[in-house]
Amino acid sequence: MTDKRFFKVSGPFSLAQLAEVSGAELAAAGDPSTQFSDVAPLGSADQTSVSFLDNRRYAEAFSSSRAGACVVRPAMVAKAPDGMALLVCDEPYHGYARIARAFYPADRSVPGQADSASVASSAHIGGDCQIGPGAVIGAEVEIGDRCVIGANTVIGRGVVIGDDCLIGPLATLACCLVGSGAIIHTGVRIGQDGFGFALGPDGHLKVPQLGRVVIEDDVEIGANSAIDRGTGPDTVIGAGTKIDNLVQIGHNVRLGRNCVVVSQVGISGSTTLGDFVMLGGQAGLAGHLIVGDGVQIAAQSGVMRDIAPGGKVGGSPAAPFRDWMRGVSVVDKLSKKKG
Amino acid sequence: MTDKRFFKVSGPFSLAQLAEVSGAELAAAGDPSTQFSDVAPLGSADQTSVSFLDNRRYAEAFSSSRAGACVVRPAMVAKAPDGMALLVCDEPYHGYARIARAFYPADRSVPGQADSASVASSAHIGGDCQIGPGAVIGAEVEIGDRCVIGANTVIGRGVVIGDDCLIGPLATLACCLVGSGAIIHTGVRIGQDGFGFALGPDGHLKVPQLGRVVIEDDVEIGANSAIDRGTGPDTVIGAGTKIDNLVQIGHNVRLGRNCVVVSQVGISGSTTLGDFVMLGGQAGLAGHLIVGDGVQIAAQSGVMRDIAPGGKVGGSPAAPFRDWMRGVSVVDKLSKKKG
Amino acid sequence: MTDKRFFKVSGPFSLAQLAEVSGAELAAAGDPSTQFSDVAPLGSADQTSVSFLDNRRYAEAFSSSRAGACVVRPAMVAKAPDGMALLVCDEPYHGYARIARAFYPADRSVPGQADSASVASSAHIGGDCQIGPGAVIGAEVEIGDRCVIGANTVIGRGVVIGDDCLIGPLATLACCLVGSGAIIHTGVRIGQDGFGFALGPDGHLKVPQLGRVVIEDDVEIGANSAIDRGTGPDTVIGAGTKIDNLVQIGHNVRLGRNCVVVSQVGISGSTTLGDFVMLGGQAGLAGHLIVGDGVQIAAQSGVMRDIAPGGKVGGSPAAPFRDWMRGVSVVDKLSKKKG
Repeated sequence: MTDKRFFKVSGPFSLAQLAEVSGAELAAAGDPSTQFSDVAPLGSADQTSVSFLDNRRYAEAFSSSRAGACVVRPAMVAKAPDGMALLVCDEPYHGYARIARAFYPADRSVPGQADSASVASSAHIGGDCQIGPGAVIGAEVEIGDRCVIGANTVIGRGVVIGDDCLIGPLATLACCLVGSGAIIHTGVRIGQDGFGFALGPDGHLKVPQLGRVVIEDDVEIGANSAIDRGTGPDTVIGAGTKIDNLVQIGHNVRLGRNCVVVSQVGISGSTTLGDFVMLGGQAGLAGHLIVGDGVQIAAQSGVMRDIAPGGKVGGSPAAPFRDWMRGVSVVDKLSKKKG
Repeated sequence: MTDKRFFKVSGPFSLAQLAEVSGAELAAAGDPSTQFSDVAPLGSADQTSVSFLDNRRYAEAFSSSRAGACVVRPAMVAKAPDGMALLVCDEPYHGYARIARAFYPADRSVPGQADSASVASSAHIGGDCQIGPGAVIGAEVEIGDRCVIGANTVIGRGVVIGDDCLIGPLATLACCLVGSGAIIHTGVRIGQDGFGFALGPDGHLKVPQLGRVVIEDDVEIGANSAIDRGTGPDTVIGAGTKIDNLVQIGHNVRLGRNCVVVSQVGISGSTTLGDFVMLGGQAGLAGHLIVGDGVQIAAQSGVMRDIAPGGKVGGSPAAPFRDWMRGVSVVDKLSKKKG
Repeated sequence: MTDKRFFKVSGPFSLAQLAEVSGAELAAAGDPSTQFSDVAPLGSADQTSVSFLDNRRYAEAFSSSRAGACVVRPAMVAKAPDGMALLVCDEPYHGYARIARAFYPADRSVPGQADSASVASSAHIGGDCQIGPGAVIGAEVEIGDRCVIGANTVIGRGVVIGDDCLIGPLATLACCLVGSGAIIHTGVRIGQDGFGFALGPDGHLKVPQLGRVVIEDDVEIGANSAIDRGTGPDTVIGAGTKIDNLVQIGHNVRLGRNCVVVSQVGISGSTTLGDFVMLGGQAGLAGHLIVGDGVQIAAQSGVMRDIAPGGKVGGSPAAPFRDWMRGVSVVDKLSKKKG
């Protein structure tokens, strides 16, 4: 059971409804009319809950689970405990995600503006928006419909935000255009000056940063991440891209569509990524690189060169994945020989 | 002398009192009734101050110090300057810490609630709490006694906080239960959605994150660190664990008791750490790992496998410490041969 | 053209004025009286805009640019498109920076204090300062003239700030002295307790942190960076030093003058850097090190030893730059031999 202090559950749903929502097929044993009232992890689920098995590490927890129903791959059907109803599909995590979203629809705005919010008279706020206590919204800001602006968040002059955006508390947005459906978590910093200096022996001359940050639709940006505005060109985050916590994105960087950027990654200025690029945690990319569509970059990689579409790299400096792994193996053997 | 704008000193204390507080023994030369009025580093201490020597790098500063008294190991007694009183113990840093805490007791709450704070009527605030300007406290929040809630901090619906907690300014707490004695620094983000997506070629489906963050007693969390809530299970920080600045802790991670997590570490989702695990700065851990009690992980390590209790690892990918060092040495020799 | 929602342009300026401002020489073809109204990147500049070419990667964009004028090195004059006026100098990026600063002077304060700011009666605010909505300024704070204090920023008791400082929104300043001309971005955390514990098998004893952070003149600190106060000595950031986003600086660290610290760097406690030290992104430095003037540290380096002035290092653990590159090359060859 989820903690009712924090989460409000919808439903119940019948097994038939869950099959429809998830796109999974009901295995023979399940009664389509059985009602389910919640989702739960394998270990804590009971007869009224739906769970899922995706990662083989948890096969044992599956076999001993008391969940009333479970979303599984076809290959796992035979290993289910007696009496468990099965929702069978090729991608159980997707199936589970759809069911969980039925029980727990995304937060919606509770329309209204807190008395302590400071909203400029020239700002335009759309319909059914929720503006939290202490939020500060600058001159000529435009916010679409059904947005939530978290408590104490600061939105600078001229910022444009689309519909159905969720901006967490204590975030900062400046010099940016944000599409619809964005989720921007607490503590995110968007649109501050990039790190632009003309370096010199007598000190470093600050260079005005005259671009923006353009965030397309359905982007999510994790807590305390920072995205600097462009120097003149814009910094761009493509539609559907998901960025984790504490990520740094430098000026003029362009991320394509549906990229996945794990925590603590750093992308240096003017580097361009294609679509569906995956970056593992703590990876770092030098500036002015071109990284193709579908590239996968292992955690902690240090990327110093362009990467062709579909490439997989790892290590620091980064090399094609197999070369990297081979290098690790060679050093390992040499060091054992020595020992 | 500490800067009186920022720190208020207690005392003075006699040398006998300092010996008692610190658990150290007075060397023969010291007069137990001598009064001391402050602590200070070796380099700037004067006759009225107490200092300490723990790291051998500073032995020279010790020999030339004008501190009136110093906490030292037995082996250093002979190297003390003339006239310096000595407080002798095996762990001078601990002895010094206790003395410094006598001169500078931890900040206490100054009971009261700022006019500009927004506190929900259904929130329950304990006795003698201090609620800073602009703080936002949501519905059904429960806060224990003698807590400080910093200026502009945002505490979401239903959060529970124990007694004697110090929450810095501009922090965010959501979907979490916090024990007693916690110190949560400015800019910390607790309880936001973890990075949970069902990835796919048509885009990435957000998975509801239905767990909490459970923070046990006496935990400290450094500035701008982020701890995501669990997916269904909870994210747990064990009692006495200390976390530095800018650390990332993913959903479902479980840290044991008294772990030490240095700055900029990243721990991926569902990884479990035992008690007294030490993580050096910028280390990264993959997801779904099990790391045993007492494990030590060197700075910048990239941990991709489980580690048995007591293990010491380093490198990326991480290997047992000796293997890592040997590998570094082998590469070093080969590269010099080549040169 | 820059987005007028966010940027207000000065000018126009004649080509002769731009030559004077930038210190560049006019190539023969340019008419000194031609008026220019803005700066722009090579790709989007038109006849009324000034651009620049510094990085050879963009030589092609230069040759096809429609910019009315461009700041270039002497060697590039021959490759300019017909009709483009040229401002020729050895450091085009510096020349461009000066021109861009003429078109876009730094933000100035708009004197006044928001009604929702909380300013202690004992605080002293200089002339012509701008205090944003929700800002909290503690007792006995001293702020110089012409400073901007961003919305919801929290400045703790006793902090001293010089003239002409720009403090972004949602920043935290405590236990610190800040010189003149500082730029402190949104989300920066200055002066919180460092990570100081006397470790032990029964738990970790918190050690009072009794020093300050001293920030000299003309320092810039990037979004969400954290600088802990000293333990007794101070943490010091030397004049003219520029720090990027998400950087961690531990207690007692001393940075010299005009250092450049790129994003996500971590510097452990009590390490001292000389002047003009350059740290690449995600580099980490162990504690108690001495790093000399002019040292260059590559991105992702792990520095575990002192570095003499002028040294260049890379790798983890860091080695002199050539040794590091040779080691990378040796491993690369061995792994290919094996394959």
